[in-house]
Amino acid sequence: MIDPKDDKSSSFIYRTTKQEPSRNISHFLVGRPLQTADASHQTIRKRVGLAVFASDALSSTAYATQEILVILAGAGTMAFFGYVFPISIVIVGLLAIVVISYEQIIHAYPDGGGAYIVAYDNLGRSPALVAAAALLIDYILTVSVSVSSGVAQITSAYPQLFEYRVLISVLFVIFVTLVNLRGVKEAGAAFAIPSYFFITIMFLMIGTGLFRTISGSLGVVPDPPHLEHLGEAVLGNAAFAFILLHAFSSGTAALTGVEAISNGITAFNEPRSRNAGITLILMAFILGILFMGISFLAREIQAVPSEAETVVSQLARTIFGGQGWLYLFVITGTTVILILAANTAFAGFPRLSAMLAHDGFMPRQLTYRGSRLVYSYGIVSLGAIASLLIIIFQASVTRLIPLYAIGVFLSFTLAQSGMARRWWRSGQLNPDAPVPQHAHDLRYEKSWFLKMVSNGFGALCTAIVMGVFAITKFKDGAWVVLILTPVLIGIFIFIRRHYTGVASGLSLENYGEPPPYLGRHRVIVPISNVHQGTLAALRYARMLSDDITAVHISIEPEDTEKVRRRWEKWGRGTRLVIVDSPYRLFLEPLLVYIKEILSARQPNEIITIVVPHFVPLQRIHNTLHMQTAEMLRRELLTTPGVVITEVPYQVS
Amino acid sequence: MIDPKDDKSSSFIYRTTKQEPSRNISHFLVGRPLQTADASHQTIRKRVGLAVFASDALSSTAYATQEILVILAGAGTMAFFGYVFPISIVIVGLLAIVVISYEQIIHAYPDGGGAYIVAYDNLGRSPALVAAAALLIDYILTVSVSVSSGVAQITSAYPQLFEYRVLISVLFVIFVTLVNLRGVKEAGAAFAIPSYFFITIMFLMIGTGLFRTISGSLGVVPDPPHLEHLGEAVLGNAAFAFILLHAFSSGTAALTGVEAISNGITAFNEPRSRNAGITLILMAFILGILFMGISFLAREIQAVPSEAETVVSQLARTIFGGQGWLYLFVITGTTVILILAANTAFAGFPRLSAMLAHDGFMPRQLTYRGSRLVYSYGIVSLGAIASLLIIIFQASVTRLIPLYAIGVFLSFTLAQSGMARRWWRSGQLNPDAPVPQHAHDLRYEKSWFLKMVSNGFGALCTAIVMGVFAITKFKDGAWVVLILTPVLIGIFIFIRRHYTGVASGLSLENYGEPPPYLGRHRVIVPISNVHQGTLAALRYARMLSDDITAVHISIEPEDTEKVRRRWEKWGRGTRLVIVDSPYRLFLEPLLVYIKEILSARQPNEIITIVVPHFVPLQRIHNTLHMQTAEMLRRELLTTPGVVITEVPYQVS
Repeated sequence: MIDPKDDKSSSFIYRTTKQEPSRNISHFLVGRPLQTADASHQTIRKRVGLAVFASDALSSTAYATQEILVILAGAGTMAFFGYVFPISIVIVGLLAIVVISYEQIIHAYPDGGGAYIVAYDNLGRSPALVAAAALLIDYILTVSVSVSSGVAQITSAYPQLFEYRVLISVLFVIFVTLVNLRGVKEAGAAFAIPSYFFITIMFLMIGTGLFRTISGSLGVVPDPPHLEHLGEAVLGNAAFAFILLHAFSSGTAALTGVEAISNGITAFNEPRSRNAGITLILMAFILGILFMGISFLAREIQAVPSEAETVVSQLARTIFGGQGWLYLFVITGTTVILILAANTAFAGFPRLSAMLAHDGFMPRQLTYRGSRLVYSYGIVSLGAIASLLIIIFQASVTRLIPLYAIGVFLSFTLAQSGMARRWWRSGQLNPDAPVPQHAHDLRYEKSWFLKMVSNGFGALCTAIVMGVFAITKFKDGAWVVLILTPVLIGIFIFIRRHYTGVASGLSLENYGEPPPYLGRHRVIVPISNVHQGTLAALRYARMLSDDITAVHISIEPEDTEKVRRRWEKWGRGTRLVIVDSPYRLFLEPLLVYIKEILSARQPNEIITIVVPHFVPLQRIHNTLHMQTAEMLRRELLTTPGVVITEVPYQVS
Repeated sequence: MIDPKDDKSSSFIYRTTKQEPSRNISHFLVGRPLQTADASHQTIRKRVGLAVFASDALSSTAYATQEILVILAGAGTMAFFGYVFPISIVIVGLLAIVVISYEQIIHAYPDGGGAYIVAYDNLGRSPALVAAAALLIDYILTVSVSVSSGVAQITSAYPQLFEYRVLISVLFVIFVTLVNLRGVKEAGAAFAIPSYFFITIMFLMIGTGLFRTISGSLGVVPDPPHLEHLGEAVLGNAAFAFILLHAFSSGTAALTGVEAISNGITAFNEPRSRNAGITLILMAFILGILFMGISFLAREIQAVPSEAETVVSQLARTIFGGQGWLYLFVITGTTVILILAANTAFAGFPRLSAMLAHDGFMPRQLTYRGSRLVYSYGIVSLGAIASLLIIIFQASVTRLIPLYAIGVFLSFTLAQSGMARRWWRSGQLNPDAPVPQHAHDLRYEKSWFLKMVSNGFGALCTAIVMGVFAITKFKDGAWVVLILTPVLIGIFIFIRRHYTGVASGLSLENYGEPPPYLGRHRVIVPISNVHQGTLAALRYARMLSDDITAVHISIEPEDTEKVRRRWEKWGRGTRLVIVDSPYRLFLEPLLVYIKEILSARQPNEIITIVVPHFVPLQRIHNTLHMQTAEMLRRELLTTPGVVITEVPYQVS
């Protein structure tokens, strides 16, 4: 259907109904892609939304408590383990602050507001790039940490697999990579079942644990794993405070993934901001309860941090009294939700890349959802880097965690600073000005001051946490992130500079008069033989110009004689040039000939090289045929005025 | 210079003086490539020829004696070690037979006669393919065995490196691969110095050893390595005979590389056959003396076969009385000549591939020396497979040797059977017939009967050796070669069948009248923006046809509006079609549009898609730009009547 839209214009609008993306394309987050203009019938309810977006956040309860214990063990005495619960309470308090801040982001950016968008909109380009770099690094670490923790759950139940943990982790990463390369299909149910299974079994475990605590029948971990991390006894208040802050930093890993909902608001039913906001609060409640419950019970049963057995496994077998079905349910549920959390990173990474690409900071192809090749490249890179980290850190969550979370808190801080600034600017606007059209455009808000204070307080808190994190974990690995972030930002700026340079170089701004349209058009047809394919190329060449030269590179004199005789019969009088190649070379003499032609050409003369190109029925046969056009293109692409065309032919 | 050769013909012969292949091309064996017609000024003297072609053959003395001892140790008593010298004498006798046979090949095939050529010429296609498959497998094993043995020499001198032997071997293979990827330059001196150094130091060692034997001061190996391979005591004559034959088979590895000169006759000064023949005899003498000397002295000093220390190392430190300079010279000389031997396989592999490709049994591109890409592929494959074998067999010469040599003897047998048949046919010719033009064409020979007997005897001997080898070493690994050879032959035949199928499908034999030359020529220009590059593509499109449609995929409405406005100004009235893409896809809507056009086209209508293609100044920037033409080509290559052309543009 070609509809002339405007009779005076030379342009037409063409619409087709067949544009549903093919099933091979990796969808962004869930299910079928959403059309920007009319998406309401494609959205999800809160309870599905919770399942889809919560896996990343909830899964962190699988390792946060344990990582606090690891640091406390560094104090040299298990007496310090008692601090795990108070520290967890402080972290849940921090969770509340972050959630309140994100509630405001969700309402201010109903089209989805990640840290990159909020920072760009309110703080400018540089802070936005910092947020983007931090988030990209964090997506990679989400994969490494989640998969390593998932495998740690498995090896807790099956210790004989412990020595294969790196291999199993890498296999999981490869599995998730392959799933994402194939494209994630309608993911609602796939997420909902394991998410609710995890929530149910964890609540059951914590409930049973609390009940047995009250009834006095819980006891301690039977046959606890060996405690590897016990450090030297700590003396002095400063060292003590450092340990507590350090333990707190490790525990903040529990907050990772909280921001996921703010990225996916458009996926919710209308009123989407309200629904997304309620879901966020619900998720935060579940997260808080699970985390506090686990930390409380871990202290009660005197769980011990260990690479050999996770705290979750110790909890489950102590509470459920052995390694029965319920124990296996906890292990399975925890493992699956951790793998799902890794999967969300595979969705978030290309989505953020697309935004960056749209703004010119990443390769432009990433903005198109259809360019499978490019996405595949991104997905494979993500999987490869995550696997590399797993191998380097031997699938140890404890060794990976110092790199994690710092990026999350950097992006929290930037997002909330941006929001605080937004409310400040909102307060300066005229309350009577007309309401702007776009939902996310700046407008006057009555309670701007309160909102500013709440976001500002959130930014301050997360900034302090980030500082604590950077200082306490600097030498454990946080320094890697502090180096990588500016490197990534440098790459963003480099790419952007390239695009602007090209755009101004190609601009028509001061272009003046274009060169004249007519010039000599010379066509060269390299032929190795005379057959139906050669004649197809010759026929095409004659449509382009009357000035055609066929070129044959003579390697075997007998072959050349055959070509010459056949050309007499089939060449329609077209000139045939035979180039001797005494060294049995093919490409080089052809290039020498072409370059000699080029050196003698007239101004505005265009040379088209028409290459007969055999297309085999099976792709593997391609390896059996010369890729002449490809080779010529590699050599001549930068030569102005030369166009290389391949005319495909097949055996019918 | 374009010389019209024949006024009535439409073809021209074009000669250029600039066709020397560029320095990046991997040369075949040594130095600059030889022109077929006039090569005499590029040839080498006998003493350089000896150095160039002898490394492969002479280097096998580094492991042949040791491998005999390994098998003799299987007899369960060191008393059997005494058989090493008699076995070596038998092998040198076999060497003499093979050399006499090859002397005749060299004179019958002055243009170079490998087993493939001789077998093809005299026995037909199938035996030739067997020889080719056997030789290709042997080239791979030459690399693995030579490098492993070279590294074994190093770890003999520096036992602390023993645990890294696999890594070091793979690094050597990578090194040789890289050298060959870069292209081997003028190799005369590079080969001559290490070859003559090796010959000198080995003669010095053997001479000193013999002198000390006579003077009675030699003694046995001080502090010999542990003997790992000692088997159970052997009882019975059959088992005893089997051990001797088995040991003999292992020792025949000494003969590998003898055929090298017959492949490279054209590299010698005229009279080349005579010079090559003398060089072969010279080489055989040196090889025989070295091999017998090493075997004799190994028995004298009671050398022990061991993975930890090679027999050469034991000899050197016993004869030279410690690990001084002379010892290190022996180790270094042996290692270097073994690495050179591996390097010759990298030269032989592509040369044989080129011959096979010329006859249609391997991808045709391999016949052209210029197609670097394809050669690189072959060189990298050779390096990769050789490395794989080294890793699988843990760089152990003893474990690799059962795969080696069987291919060599298979090709020896085929070459000599071919020669025997040739002499038989020669004897049937009329002695008075005119002498044929080509040097290798069949002609009457007076002493044909004698020659036939000598080649036939050689064939018989090598066939027996091959049989002994296959039986005694079958379960040690020879079965791998016996499976791989037919697989390779199957691939050869498959490729050949593909080529003949394509050729007959494209034949003009019964082609009748070609389709008419004139038809509608429609041009589609996909544009994402309007800039100088777009206009270049439009200008080119207007040279092809008057029927042009520009297509813009609309992803952002604002961008589309900009494109439309600019097209009004710069588009010269060319029709612009805007295709809506609500899913943010790029390629898919474009394909839908093109396919709709295609479905409505007239008979004989040709559609050319002209794609503006940005060519960045640095190749790395390619990753930042859409490869639209590449993507379209992948999708539309098999669609008849569609031609995809990219019009390159650059920022000036």
